[in-house]
Amino acid sequence: MKIAYKIWLDNNGKAFGRGPNELLKRVEATNSLRQAAAQMAMSYSKAWKLINDMEDKLGFPLLERTVGGLVGGGSKITPRAKELAKRYDNLEKDIQKAMVKIYQKHLGVWLGKETKG
Amino acid sequence: MKIAYKIWLDNNGKAFGRGPNELLKRVEATNSLRQAAAQMAMSYSKAWKLINDMEDKLGFPLLERTVGGLVGGGSKITPRAKELAKRYDNLEKDIQKAMVKIYQKHLGVWLGKETKG
Repeated sequence: MKIAYKIWLDNNGKAFGRGPNELLKRVEATNSLRQAAAQMAMSYSKAWKLINDMEDKLGFPLLERTVGGLVGGGSKITPRAKELAKRYDNLEKDIQKAMVKIYQKHLGVWLGKETKG
Repeated sequence: MKIAYKIWLDNNGKAFGRGPNELLKRVEATNSLRQAAAQMAMSYSKAWKLINDMEDKLGFPLLERTVGGLVGGGSKITPRAKELAKRYDNLEKDIQKAMVKIYQKHLGVWLGKETKG
């Protein structure tokens, strides 16, 4: 037995979560929303919609659009998006620790005894 | 903005959660799985299946079946089920507190500044 959970940020609807966080990191690594989306088997249009929706709910830009130039267009994540991704990672780590601790306190030890007894 | 979450107990599939906990409490109040299920707009057969699945995954009985007698059959929750429901309530309370605290630490304060700035 274990505790399972899903977490996300909500602002009248999902504003951010594990999937969007992964998308941001892949944009950071590739400088391309198209490549990041493809890596996650997500359509480019769905990825754009996701980014736009998150930007609306968060209230700040996640991507800088670059157009044309020698290497063609691309997407770079903003410093705020980078900070958000890092903070979300740390939040997830703390939540995982707290979940295990709280589960053990109330149920883990007790269920262990109950199912053995 | 706020943090949102769902939690449940997992043992190769959902073993317990908020809905089952509510069902147990309603059985405790009514001494009837039929009434408890009806209150939650759940079919009686679905409620039985849920109870049986949970008992399998938890490894101990949740309901005592009483058959016949002057007032007809009914269902009483077992002492272990009562203890489980109480422990799950306390787990939920601690998790709610931890979630808010961890959200504030990593994101709440920062997002407040970000969206105002």
